[in-house]
Amino acid sequence: MWRHSLLVALLLVVICPLPTSARRATASKPNGMIIKAVQAVLSAQAAAWNRGDIEGFMAGYWRAEETNFVSGDSLTRGWQTVLDRYKKNYDTREKMGTLVYSDLEITPIGNDAAIALGRWHLQRAKDEPHGRFTLIFRRTKQGWRIVHDHTSSAPA
Amino acid sequence: MWRHSLLVALLLVVICPLPTSARRATASKPNGMIIKAVQAVLSAQAAAWNRGDIEGFMAGYWRAEETNFVSGDSLTRGWQTVLDRYKKNYDTREKMGTLVYSDLEITPIGNDAAIALGRWHLQRAKDEPHGRFTLIFRRTKQGWRIVHDHTSSAPA
Repeated sequence: MWRHSLLVALLLVVICPLPTSARRATASKPNGMIIKAVQAVLSAQAAAWNRGDIEGFMAGYWRAEETNFVSGDSLTRGWQTVLDRYKKNYDTREKMGTLVYSDLEITPIGNDAAIALGRWHLQRAKDEPHGRFTLIFRRTKQGWRIVHDHTSSAPA
Repeated sequence: MWRHSLLVALLLVVICPLPTSARRATASKPNGMIIKAVQAVLSAQAAAWNRGDIEGFMAGYWRAEETNFVSGDSLTRGWQTVLDRYKKNYDTREKMGTLVYSDLEITPIGNDAAIALGRWHLQRAKDEPHGRFTLIFRRTKQGWRIVHDHTSSAPA
């Protein structure tokens, strides 16, 4: 069951069709490369989450004090603080569930930044929290990383 | 009372101190100009909202089919659709209340884009909804405009 869910999640991330804006952008080579790089970070994040590896998931975020995670009325600032928040809110494998991203739209801004809009869905035994995210990626020395994450949830 | 609230709201938008990132950015002239331009759009939006002018408020958004408004689990796409949503959700002057922005942080991305992170607060007779927003601004032919708005609310 666990392996099956993981496979489904990975397949959804990998094969979900590119939206129009992404498809259009793929036409120009530099944009296509940015989109692929951002997709790779997101796929790696989902894979890490779905093996219960929050630190691996956090590798997608810029390891800096300026990194922002915004949700509801709260702002969490700094890579370590964002990690601590995830560890606190998802302190068991059951709470983590299986993460699926969908409806991804990646829009490059110049050569060194991109926006990723998408939906997130946690498959869990007792509930299925879900919502939308807006991620701002920057090209850093370590590669493409999330510098700003605004995540919202469907009303419970 | 009405004039007083408006004045307070405008003053808060105008005089709220720049956060560190904005202050740092002001040091370099092009960034300082971007920040001022984005601040001007936000101030005009709050002023329009607080005189009950939703169309004036919407002037801050890019008038395009690609303009996104994200909230909860919903995505509203297109300037007109975003306007219709605002008109439906705020169909009386009482529901609009008095809008105050605070904790604004404006971060330019290159020469033609910027992120604005901040808090929103509606002063109303019966409740005070509030939360955070992440806005992505682009430099358009019409000036700096919001192309993507991700807004979240404190749990009711």
